[in-house]
Amino acid sequence: MKRVLFLVCVLAIEEGVGASPAVVDAQALSPAISPAEQLFLATPTPDRARRWLQALTAEPHVAGTPAEKKVAEYVLARFKEFGLSAEMVRYDVFLNHPKHVSLKLTSPVQEELKLREDEAIDDASRRAWPPGPSAAMFPAFHGYGASGAAEGEIVYVNYGSPADFARLEGMGISVAGKITIVRYGGAFRGLKVKESQDRGAVGVIIYSDPADDGYMRGDVYPDGPMRPASAIQRGSVLFLSHVPGDPSTPGWPSTTGAKRLTREQMTNVPKIPSLPIAYAEAEKILRRLGGPRVPDDWQGGLPFSYHVGPGAARVAMDVQMDEGLKPIYNVIARIKGSVEPDKLVILGNHRDAWNHGAVDPNSGTAAQLEVARGFGAALKSGWTPKRTIIIASWDAEEYGLVGSTEWAEEHAADLSNNAIAYLNCDVAVTGPNLGMSGVPSLFALALQAARDVPDPKLGGSIGAGWESRQRAAWNMATPIELNAQQDAQFAPRLSPLGSGSDYTAFIDHLGVPSFDFGFSGGYGVYHSVYDNFHWMQKYGDPEFLYHAAAAKLWGLMAMRLASADVVPLRFGTYANDLQADLDSLRRDALRRARTPVDASSGAKPPITPDFSEVLGALQELRTAGESADRTADAGLKSGDAARIRRINEALVDVERAFLDTKGLPNRPWFRHLLIAPGLTTGYAPWPFPALQEALDAKDAAMFSAQSKRIVAVLRAGTERLRTAAK
Amino acid sequence: MKRVLFLVCVLAIEEGVGASPAVVDAQALSPAISPAEQLFLATPTPDRARRWLQALTAEPHVAGTPAEKKVAEYVLARFKEFGLSAEMVRYDVFLNHPKHVSLKLTSPVQEELKLREDEAIDDASRRAWPPGPSAAMFPAFHGYGASGAAEGEIVYVNYGSPADFARLEGMGISVAGKITIVRYGGAFRGLKVKESQDRGAVGVIIYSDPADDGYMRGDVYPDGPMRPASAIQRGSVLFLSHVPGDPSTPGWPSTTGAKRLTREQMTNVPKIPSLPIAYAEAEKILRRLGGPRVPDDWQGGLPFSYHVGPGAARVAMDVQMDEGLKPIYNVIARIKGSVEPDKLVILGNHRDAWNHGAVDPNSGTAAQLEVARGFGAALKSGWTPKRTIIIASWDAEEYGLVGSTEWAEEHAADLSNNAIAYLNCDVAVTGPNLGMSGVPSLFALALQAARDVPDPKLGGSIGAGWESRQRAAWNMATPIELNAQQDAQFAPRLSPLGSGSDYTAFIDHLGVPSFDFGFSGGYGVYHSVYDNFHWMQKYGDPEFLYHAAAAKLWGLMAMRLASADVVPLRFGTYANDLQADLDSLRRDALRRARTPVDASSGAKPPITPDFSEVLGALQELRTAGESADRTADAGLKSGDAARIRRINEALVDVERAFLDTKGLPNRPWFRHLLIAPGLTTGYAPWPFPALQEALDAKDAAMFSAQSKRIVAVLRAGTERLRTAAK
Repeated sequence: MKRVLFLVCVLAIEEGVGASPAVVDAQALSPAISPAEQLFLATPTPDRARRWLQALTAEPHVAGTPAEKKVAEYVLARFKEFGLSAEMVRYDVFLNHPKHVSLKLTSPVQEELKLREDEAIDDASRRAWPPGPSAAMFPAFHGYGASGAAEGEIVYVNYGSPADFARLEGMGISVAGKITIVRYGGAFRGLKVKESQDRGAVGVIIYSDPADDGYMRGDVYPDGPMRPASAIQRGSVLFLSHVPGDPSTPGWPSTTGAKRLTREQMTNVPKIPSLPIAYAEAEKILRRLGGPRVPDDWQGGLPFSYHVGPGAARVAMDVQMDEGLKPIYNVIARIKGSVEPDKLVILGNHRDAWNHGAVDPNSGTAAQLEVARGFGAALKSGWTPKRTIIIASWDAEEYGLVGSTEWAEEHAADLSNNAIAYLNCDVAVTGPNLGMSGVPSLFALALQAARDVPDPKLGGSIGAGWESRQRAAWNMATPIELNAQQDAQFAPRLSPLGSGSDYTAFIDHLGVPSFDFGFSGGYGVYHSVYDNFHWMQKYGDPEFLYHAAAAKLWGLMAMRLASADVVPLRFGTYANDLQADLDSLRRDALRRARTPVDASSGAKPPITPDFSEVLGALQELRTAGESADRTADAGLKSGDAARIRRINEALVDVERAFLDTKGLPNRPWFRHLLIAPGLTTGYAPWPFPALQEALDAKDAAMFSAQSKRIVAVLRAGTERLRTAAK
Repeated sequence: MKRVLFLVCVLAIEEGVGASPAVVDAQALSPAISPAEQLFLATPTPDRARRWLQALTAEPHVAGTPAEKKVAEYVLARFKEFGLSAEMVRYDVFLNHPKHVSLKLTSPVQEELKLREDEAIDDASRRAWPPGPSAAMFPAFHGYGASGAAEGEIVYVNYGSPADFARLEGMGISVAGKITIVRYGGAFRGLKVKESQDRGAVGVIIYSDPADDGYMRGDVYPDGPMRPASAIQRGSVLFLSHVPGDPSTPGWPSTTGAKRLTREQMTNVPKIPSLPIAYAEAEKILRRLGGPRVPDDWQGGLPFSYHVGPGAARVAMDVQMDEGLKPIYNVIARIKGSVEPDKLVILGNHRDAWNHGAVDPNSGTAAQLEVARGFGAALKSGWTPKRTIIIASWDAEEYGLVGSTEWAEEHAADLSNNAIAYLNCDVAVTGPNLGMSGVPSLFALALQAARDVPDPKLGGSIGAGWESRQRAAWNMATPIELNAQQDAQFAPRLSPLGSGSDYTAFIDHLGVPSFDFGFSGGYGVYHSVYDNFHWMQKYGDPEFLYHAAAAKLWGLMAMRLASADVVPLRFGTYANDLQADLDSLRRDALRRARTPVDASSGAKPPITPDFSEVLGALQELRTAGESADRTADAGLKSGDAARIRRINEALVDVERAFLDTKGLPNRPWFRHLLIAPGLTTGYAPWPFPALQEALDAKDAAMFSAQSKRIVAVLRAGTERLRTAAK
């Protein structure tokens, strides 16, 4: 699914930067590209990537449809053709497809609103790419959207966040009994539906505002890469930040005979109907809303002054779903390790799409096939990895990370014991700008690998370009402290992982060090019919150069993880990154504390939390991490196999130490106490999630209790590092 | 002219706040409202303000027209009716009125573009207010715009700032030989023309983008207060930040027989033609521009993706002006002081308008008439001020602060010796939110007076409401320093004075402590035909409550300045406010220094300036200011007339000490070294203007030399304060 570009950019500026005084010299990790790596790097080509993408995107392939099974078989056949051992793994999972959808404006005029894209727009492009039966696309619907009919007045609720609803309440406007119209952007769409449902709305319409990914952001398709007036953003409305995966088996695998919840029993899917619409249709509703003028920052890009409603517009929506258990197919290739075959390095990408999926996700699939072809070439020349490499092509990610979550839940014990790292790529390419997220222990590896891959268009390496964009974002975002001893120093870092792609089960549920990356640019056709091969060829990556670069980065990282004597997890900057995240929370808490509360309003005053224990634990983690890194480097030089094994076991165990079996407050599936998708954001990460929740709830006791749990896992991680350093 | 609302708001957040540790207890200045003040405060009424405004705005009254002379006579008659001695003061100054204006799209289609507002829009409202002959309005033109014809391709240059042009240059696009299309907002419009002219453009079109004051900001007139599609922002294109006033007598008064420059000799008026247009017309040009997509933040609110051009659109513009010396009329009322008649307290408002001027400026004129009526009432009951009060109704402010500047230049010696303070009100009301700007020495007086005036609608006092908005803005804008000893403390302050209204000659040229205020709200019809009595009655101040409140605040401050034994100038917070301004510059310099410069680009590296000398001088000013305040309070209690006279002379002299006869670099008319309108902003203030210029120019030698000059005037001010404190 992958959050859309304009969000990724915001993320990079807000969260993807931090001030770590100690810069890792990534070059020190491994001084040269090995012959096997060179052989691998010589393999991926733009031409092959183009060929794969064209084949993968010939038809829309939504999870649970025969078209998607065909694509799974295509991927399986390629893996085998490249010389890898591979299999299809089927799960039967709860999914929905639309049977009937309709949306009508019933007042002040009667008008049927369109739930399909304008086909004519693609006429010119259709000649240039294989017959893409847009007509075979499902009409507008939401994955896991509820069946139901609703009729009523409309209230515009901006992005539909809790803060937006609080603002609405301040205006004296209730959505109870109303249909909300929400714009895409900010939180994951399922949480938009949840916020409306929780407040008594009877239906939800989510639309793409031109201010967010349409003409306000650039030229629209087919004249440019951004969203045209008729384009619809499909997508899942699972309550993703509560628990992902098959909602009929929350927390356990959807294997044959598994216990199943009925739809009524599921707590993470909506009860009220929802539909996504295009801005051409949304305009017909929004123009007719009365009520007060919106708060200034709720104004979107349609050419009139927005109003909140309710009245005069009314709509009738009718949504009927075909829902139940449907088959999905993960394709799993495996290259057995020669020294530690039980240890696993996993590369994952999803394959299912809401449409043709040229960007999301099959740019990643094309890159994945080139990784596989490169590994095949290396294998033929005699290379074998020391540890086992798994290449996973996930299904049903779009519905809620279903294929990867069920597989991870099924293999939880094995992964908890043996997984070294999980490397994800969802959207590989929408433009030339590399973005990388992940746990801090994978930073040094990622940066070095990125420095080893040339930028095919901008010159230099993709790593150097990434660092320079990081620096610019850091410079804009990092406060200048006039009274500090010295100005903050720039240190590049991986952005924290939120959610919205398949790394979620690995990092958040199992504590497997995880990484995610992609090359970005202007991309406004997310989850619409226009996310097709022609779009990619015209706007995203016309020469397919970045598809090949993605394959190189991805494969190189996997080869190093699989074959380095000492596993390339490094902890010298982990505490610095955590501290930067904590500093953001501290600033936020101080800013809230500055604002006087009107006692008569009955609002709770902000809390003035004590961060000192967590800061102290971070200091210990810092020292232990630096020490472990020195030992790892020394172990590498010593060549002492037993010593290296002990170091490796300890290093791989650190991330697991950050888990707590009770999990996060009210969402036990999320067990990592240092990072999670935001409870109310879905996509965007919350470092120290329970502290963030306590600040939002103004709950000092919760803050204090959760601080202690965090200190405990930080100390557990510190202990592992001390073991490694022994 | 008064910068428009959306700019005022930005200013309040960016510049109107500062962290002064020592909060003045304004209540200490004067503990009670005197009987004369009570009598005055009981006089202004909403009904009278409404009556004056309706009369003042019956016709458009542009400077130099018979209609404007009629309004001057009306004001003179009212002053006399209220029992004040008053006179008309005529100057003959260089002005222009349009003879012929036309603008045609010549490619890719032929279309005449409209240079008049849509009249029909006012039909409904016209019944409600006196015959407002919109047809008598001049068509679109610019005050001091050049005569001339131009034809050619168009380039969109965003707000037309130097940074915007640098961006354009980076894109390889030149405006030489082209016509630029610029959007209103940011800098004063004359500087937009200058930046285009300096780069070889042959004509300039300035339009109002709906993102800035149209539908993106609220409902448009007649359904709301914001700018409708046909509304044109007229205005002056003088190079205001270089030297204001009559451009034929720059720096000297336009008295009979004065030396005059010819138009060719004038350096602060454009040489190339320019026209303002409405967004309905601008859309026809902008939609047809090719060339590259604009940088993201150049996108405006019209519903398509903006392009820079040039091509395919071409326009032909023809502008013919009737220009030359025309008569303008200041109306000057005078209430002679009973104790120190030579000492002057001046209240000024301009009267001329680009249109009917209900908001700009005659809401201020209506308030001014109520001040005069209140003073008249107090005089009748036996009150006389100790010092002389002058009430000035300026003409030709809209062309470039002409009436006030010529008068101030004519009376420069008297004002330099005797002016205690200048209190300006341009736009008095567009809504309920008080804004106050001025020198820090007037802060205590202003806050106390504002606390003494009830808020007629929101409850409490207008001062309390002002403080709470200040606090909210401060909280958003002030950085959190995690490593500081303690968090910054909020202290309210007056916003620094920029330019765009008649205080300019007083503060910047003569060093008279100056103040400016007004009540703001949503206001998008600035300088258009819709700035009329009906707009005010429907949106700005339907009950005219804030007109009366404005009169009360203004008059109360003047009465206290005129009658307090020790003049109410207080200096305890002056250094703190300057330090907050300097801290902004320091942060800015540090942020620039963080950014690595690509040596190959040939760009100069940012300088790393030394602020320590100025900081040291501020520390001395702080101590001396606090000490002077204590002496002033003690002097007040002692009742020792000779001592008080010595204190007063020293206090009044402090602001003058901040002047330097050589003035600012390249603009000697601006003599205040601590504050000026931005050289490239016009409206927005630049504290420490020469340091700002040196940072922009990356000129370390200039920074160092200008620091020394600033230290010298700070020390001179410190000396005066020490004299006062003796």
